[in-house]
Amino acid sequence: MIKITFPDGNIREYNSGVTPMEVALSISEGLARNVLAAKVDDQVVDASTAIQADAHVQLLTWNDTEGKKTFWHSSAHLMAEALEALYPGTKFGIGPAIENGFYYDIDLGDKEFGSDQFKQIEDKMLELARQKSEYLRKPVAKADAIAYFQEKDDEYKLELLEGLEDGSITFYTQGNFTDLCRGPHIPQTGFIKSVKLLSVAGAYWRGDEKRKQMTRIYAITFPKAKELEEYLFLLEEAKRRDHRKLGKELELFAFSEKVGLGLPLWLPKGTILRERLENFLRRAQVRAGYSPVVTPHIGSKELYVTSGHYAKYGKDSFQPIHTPDEGEEFLLKPMNCPHHCEIYKVKPRSYKDLPLRLAEFGTVYRYEQSGELHGLTRVRGFTQDDAHIFCRPDQVEDEFMKVIDLVLYVFKALGFHEFSAQVSLRDKTDREKYIGRDEDWEKAEAAIIKSAQEKGLPYVVEYGEAAFYGPKLDFMVRDALGRKWQLGTIQVDYQLPQRFELEYTGSDNQKHRPVMIHRAPFGSLERFVAILIENTAGNFPLWLSPDQLAVLPISEKYEDYANEIYLRLQERDLRGYVDHRDEKIGRKIRDAEVSKVPFMIIVGDKEQAEGLVSIRKKGQGDLGSMTLDAFMAIAQEEIQQLTHDK
Amino acid sequence: MIKITFPDGNIREYNSGVTPMEVALSISEGLARNVLAAKVDDQVVDASTAIQADAHVQLLTWNDTEGKKTFWHSSAHLMAEALEALYPGTKFGIGPAIENGFYYDIDLGDKEFGSDQFKQIEDKMLELARQKSEYLRKPVAKADAIAYFQEKDDEYKLELLEGLEDGSITFYTQGNFTDLCRGPHIPQTGFIKSVKLLSVAGAYWRGDEKRKQMTRIYAITFPKAKELEEYLFLLEEAKRRDHRKLGKELELFAFSEKVGLGLPLWLPKGTILRERLENFLRRAQVRAGYSPVVTPHIGSKELYVTSGHYAKYGKDSFQPIHTPDEGEEFLLKPMNCPHHCEIYKVKPRSYKDLPLRLAEFGTVYRYEQSGELHGLTRVRGFTQDDAHIFCRPDQVEDEFMKVIDLVLYVFKALGFHEFSAQVSLRDKTDREKYIGRDEDWEKAEAAIIKSAQEKGLPYVVEYGEAAFYGPKLDFMVRDALGRKWQLGTIQVDYQLPQRFELEYTGSDNQKHRPVMIHRAPFGSLERFVAILIENTAGNFPLWLSPDQLAVLPISEKYEDYANEIYLRLQERDLRGYVDHRDEKIGRKIRDAEVSKVPFMIIVGDKEQAEGLVSIRKKGQGDLGSMTLDAFMAIAQEEIQQLTHDK
Repeated sequence: MIKITFPDGNIREYNSGVTPMEVALSISEGLARNVLAAKVDDQVVDASTAIQADAHVQLLTWNDTEGKKTFWHSSAHLMAEALEALYPGTKFGIGPAIENGFYYDIDLGDKEFGSDQFKQIEDKMLELARQKSEYLRKPVAKADAIAYFQEKDDEYKLELLEGLEDGSITFYTQGNFTDLCRGPHIPQTGFIKSVKLLSVAGAYWRGDEKRKQMTRIYAITFPKAKELEEYLFLLEEAKRRDHRKLGKELELFAFSEKVGLGLPLWLPKGTILRERLENFLRRAQVRAGYSPVVTPHIGSKELYVTSGHYAKYGKDSFQPIHTPDEGEEFLLKPMNCPHHCEIYKVKPRSYKDLPLRLAEFGTVYRYEQSGELHGLTRVRGFTQDDAHIFCRPDQVEDEFMKVIDLVLYVFKALGFHEFSAQVSLRDKTDREKYIGRDEDWEKAEAAIIKSAQEKGLPYVVEYGEAAFYGPKLDFMVRDALGRKWQLGTIQVDYQLPQRFELEYTGSDNQKHRPVMIHRAPFGSLERFVAILIENTAGNFPLWLSPDQLAVLPISEKYEDYANEIYLRLQERDLRGYVDHRDEKIGRKIRDAEVSKVPFMIIVGDKEQAEGLVSIRKKGQGDLGSMTLDAFMAIAQEEIQQLTHDK
Repeated sequence: MIKITFPDGNIREYNSGVTPMEVALSISEGLARNVLAAKVDDQVVDASTAIQADAHVQLLTWNDTEGKKTFWHSSAHLMAEALEALYPGTKFGIGPAIENGFYYDIDLGDKEFGSDQFKQIEDKMLELARQKSEYLRKPVAKADAIAYFQEKDDEYKLELLEGLEDGSITFYTQGNFTDLCRGPHIPQTGFIKSVKLLSVAGAYWRGDEKRKQMTRIYAITFPKAKELEEYLFLLEEAKRRDHRKLGKELELFAFSEKVGLGLPLWLPKGTILRERLENFLRRAQVRAGYSPVVTPHIGSKELYVTSGHYAKYGKDSFQPIHTPDEGEEFLLKPMNCPHHCEIYKVKPRSYKDLPLRLAEFGTVYRYEQSGELHGLTRVRGFTQDDAHIFCRPDQVEDEFMKVIDLVLYVFKALGFHEFSAQVSLRDKTDREKYIGRDEDWEKAEAAIIKSAQEKGLPYVVEYGEAAFYGPKLDFMVRDALGRKWQLGTIQVDYQLPQRFELEYTGSDNQKHRPVMIHRAPFGSLERFVAILIENTAGNFPLWLSPDQLAVLPISEKYEDYANEIYLRLQERDLRGYVDHRDEKIGRKIRDAEVSKVPFMIIVGDKEQAEGLVSIRKKGQGDLGSMTLDAFMAIAQEEIQQLTHDK
């Protein structure tokens, strides 16, 4: 008998040689129907693998990332089987699972290939899947493996075999198809219920541009047809909401090669949105006792030598800026903390002055390879909604709690209601790695966990993920498409106060070292705006909308009245534009809808005569005619609600 | 007979050989009493110089800069005469007039010298002045001059003589003192009515640190005793208002060597002030039809090659920033215009889209020698309240007028009521020097002058001072001490639109080139804040005050009530602090006054019982007790008035 320990800590006894599938059956038939593979002592294996000794076992289903990966890897074999059936002589490179689906790199010889052939392959795959062929694992001697692929004349598999050791080589066979593969795989092809080929692209064999270009076919499969539908819907929706596309259409931001890659230019509408976000957070921070500061975008190299950033990142960053006489060296600032430490040092601090919370919308510059740049989510210059809290060790818990309050307030006000956190602590077996006193770490780690619990924030703990200078908490939000985004962070830091020799005089009249907390709710304004665009599909809440309203005169006869209306709106800090174009009112309304303007104010004969305005709301249609004051009350109430009641 | 032309264009005839003093006498005895020297055909000469031919003559008095300079140069001779009388054997270096007063570098041999001797010298100078000794000019042969100073054993004058040509050497004598000097001088010592020695310092002979260190005595003199008093008062007042001193005392900004020279760190109170200024201008600009943008603080070198800045300033600026792989080069941005040109180019523009007014609080970096840095007025990084107006040539005048309106609105709102302008136009004799079409220049120059006139802005025209890319207008304001400061600027630019190939489609469906107007009312936020500090002596208007109020509980018994009061004030966007220190109320009031907090809100037994607050206003004293609402109404009215009614 052997002991199997399950993830929830339960232990059961089985005969030695039991397979995960048998274990699943011993629990419930329903579970067994869903088991794709299993994790035995941290190794993912076939559900048919015999377990010979005591082990930790996790049964993997579609709900587990590793279950999905196995499912897609098996699907790649199924696609290969279909391709071989449809295009005999096809040679195969590699066919791994990826984040969403899988691909296979194939060599079709002289055959033409394009997306018009997708349907035929999908049908063949489903036909083969219905045969419920088992994925059979078989160890093979290297010589036999070579003989097999020599017969098939597949130079790719032969090259892969060269790198493998005799005795470690396995084949997997399902139906008529056999592949060189270390596995694991799902039990049989019948699990695969829906199939979609997504795209075809060229890919160099082994990523080497001097070698042969193969055909890479991307595809995805699901255990239920409904899931494919959902996936395709989300894929379309994600494309529709892509912040790069909407950023251009709504004229929020742009890039210019002449300015430089990854350096966004904020256009007027994007700047209005950005200013509103900044003001919103600035206001919340003032209420929470933060003090604003402004520091330069460069600092002497010496500053970063002191902070340790130069030694760590200097070589891979934007290089130093020299002065004409070569006498001084500056660096573009990659973070704001060293500058804030220097502000802390401007005058002596007492225990009564702490916590000191210095906040700055600080634009920082970090070098990224041009190939890694992506819209506003991966840039070379971005503005952090940064703050550093300098506090006494006994204040860490309270400050942490307040930061969580602030961050959750901000997320909720901006329409994110599902969030979670990752708490990164020390690897307790390797305490040497970390600086700072053991008791401070223990206090800080306990404080972080307690804060997350008290604030009802769902979290996972990752040991060994703390920075060497302190533990941290990262926030994740889920957007309207269910995608998870990492946003802000809170980090405890014992290192910089030490490196900058920060001090305060305690109530005991002795010098003490403060603790620093780094925090940024948005993380980066650029990244946050990107996520906000994708989450709202550009339908921003009224208080954030670059244009809150459009005044639409029915004809040029009403231009003066339209201008007068707009002036009065502007005086009440409502913003937008008057559409003076010589266009039909229908066109004006359509264009305002496309620009996602929340309110349309239509003025014509009737309105002018009665001193009224007709209001249309985007997505709701006609709200009828009313006095301008009545409309402003509606608009202002909507703004108030969104900015203050959260 | 010769013809003398006066500055006002009048011409009079005199006998050849007439002196300026005789000319003055011919006009009025009063004038003659004030003539210090004269400018004859652009050369400043003694008032006793004979004029032999037709000439332009300007009689110089104390009201002319060159009159003052002559007065102070003669005063240096008078101080030398006094020094020689008091310390026989003193040797003399050079003794020029400077911006305010004069100095003389002397060698006193082994004699001790310090400011305790100032009084004696001042008295001696006044005694000698009362003798009304004439300053007599005498040409001397070089050999005679050498013999004279050899006898006095004055190696300094002998060294100066080495560099002079025989035939060009003159001596000036007044009373018992003779000096090697090319003049000119005032008629006689009696003009000097008041004298003040200001300071003493070491100065190397001929500025060469390897040579002898001499004693430099700084002094100033006036033709009226009252003027000295005023001067000394202003000197004290300027010291008291020095923005570097107040900036530190009021905790507005600081510098750190580790961050870098000339790179200000804005402390919390300074940041609040700065944010208010930005918001004020941002609001005014939105109303004036500007669109805000945000651009990065770096740009590719290519951007500045296109703009022409790299060729012109590249060598003397912060040097390029390289990427780790050396593949790209960036520059810290020295101005925002190239970035704004790239924003203009983001999409095609039509004549209907113009003017396009792009505004940015853009922080720029310009290298300055460390010796030239001075507080916030000369820095290496500063934020421009920048905007670029892209308009059609026919819109230049209207746009210029609107910019003047905006600038004057801003100046007045910030307490500057005396301003003037310098209009810089082309040198009409050298049209080749300028780019752009002649007719556009003529239109733009006429537009600028017309705008200044229509807006009632006093201005002077300087020909040849225009940039090669366009004419401009610079604003000067006069502060509370009567000092003039150059602030904002408006510049017309034909060059950048050409270099960036900017276009718009005209109503004729053809491509046209827009005109750019650069403008910045403050010029630089840093410099403007410095001037604002010196103008107000740190007594900012309520809406700008970093702390608008201090809540002062009489003892800790009233802390809760004080906190409650402060919370209510904060909710109404009034800002300040609660003084929780364990200090007497008198001390709390004094400290708030020193920190220049406008309102003190005192709460004690009586206030708490009655639900009232007692208000003190800085500079006005007790305003009595009232409800908090009544106080908030007073404060908010004062804020409204200052921000909106100007």
